[in-house]
Amino acid sequence: MIDIAREYRLSLPAWIDDELAEVPAVIPDRADRMRLVHRLADRTWRSGDGGPFAALVAEQDTGRIVSVGVNVVLASGLSGAHAEVLALALAQTAIGGWDLGAEGVPGHELVVNWRPCVQCYGAALWSGVRGLVVAGAGPELAELTAFDEGPLRDDWAEQFEDRGIEVTRDVLREEAVAVFRAYRAALDAGEVTVYNARGGST
Amino acid sequence: MIDIAREYRLSLPAWIDDELAEVPAVIPDRADRMRLVHRLADRTWRSGDGGPFAALVAEQDTGRIVSVGVNVVLASGLSGAHAEVLALALAQTAIGGWDLGAEGVPGHELVVNWRPCVQCYGAALWSGVRGLVVAGAGPELAELTAFDEGPLRDDWAEQFEDRGIEVTRDVLREEAVAVFRAYRAALDAGEVTVYNARGGST
Repeated sequence: MIDIAREYRLSLPAWIDDELAEVPAVIPDRADRMRLVHRLADRTWRSGDGGPFAALVAEQDTGRIVSVGVNVVLASGLSGAHAEVLALALAQTAIGGWDLGAEGVPGHELVVNWRPCVQCYGAALWSGVRGLVVAGAGPELAELTAFDEGPLRDDWAEQFEDRGIEVTRDVLREEAVAVFRAYRAALDAGEVTVYNARGGST
Repeated sequence: MIDIAREYRLSLPAWIDDELAEVPAVIPDRADRMRLVHRLADRTWRSGDGGPFAALVAEQDTGRIVSVGVNVVLASGLSGAHAEVLALALAQTAIGGWDLGAEGVPGHELVVNWRPCVQCYGAALWSGVRGLVVAGAGPELAELTAFDEGPLRDDWAEQFEDRGIEVTRDVLREEAVAVFRAYRAALDAGEVTVYNARGGST
């Protein structure tokens, strides 16, 4: 029989316990949810686990934190291990099913520190979330971090809305850009790896 | 501390051992690689693990099979557990890194039984594969299976080519449609679950 791998696993970094030690189970204010995302994104690249990206899934109405995710492409050796992928999968692990918008389940939102790349755009579409909350959606991410975000259609936000997913932008936008700028300084100093698009020089 | 999941895992179904028992380590002919994909896709939906989709990663020149993947959305309870996601992650597990196109690594191709959905389109873009081989790319998939494939740009194939990923279409196309038709018959009979797009009625 051919010898192939049959299973893989994805984990949050061990340092996540430090970062979550003081985090309450419920974060009622949306900006405070984003503040946590920014903190995790900053720690992720500084720790060498992956790019400067983090996400979380929360119950829309209560602000209960259901999951968090960070980019662990470098730590895991898997190119698809983006923050949104981990946050969505860990949220579905928590609720015990593939549909975060299922009947009888509270509405969930995905909170991310920038507009998702094309992979995570699709991951969000299929996840059942009812809302996407981003700090920003412009070209700053690609320009500052040198990550290729892939070809999204101009109507990307309308496509979410058409599927019942509300899009909220510009939540702590400057704070997101500050994380990218710090990452860029490290990139220019040759201290970090951009891992996509054939090494990522765009 | 908030109580959240820190890890998840994705596995091929146990029946994969049966299907791979007679499969050689190297499949030199591309149509034969696709034939294996179609067989796995058919078994996947019949077994109740997920939708009628399968994929594999092979070395382009030799045809050595590096990984296989099938859709395990229903089996895993994770909406992102598409065939391409498993095939790419298991291939990266096999080579020990996030870039299937890294220097010193043989060129890899992703073989799938239809054009990827928007999530897996992105997953393929970031994986380092040098080729994408699909049985077909038209509206038949969505029309027959009722799965929402998401909004791809019209220039989706050019975007692959621009990043050095060669796209090959129409490899055993009719055989792919035959799998979708069988799935559709089961769908019309109420025997299977379409799991995306809020239950999937499109």
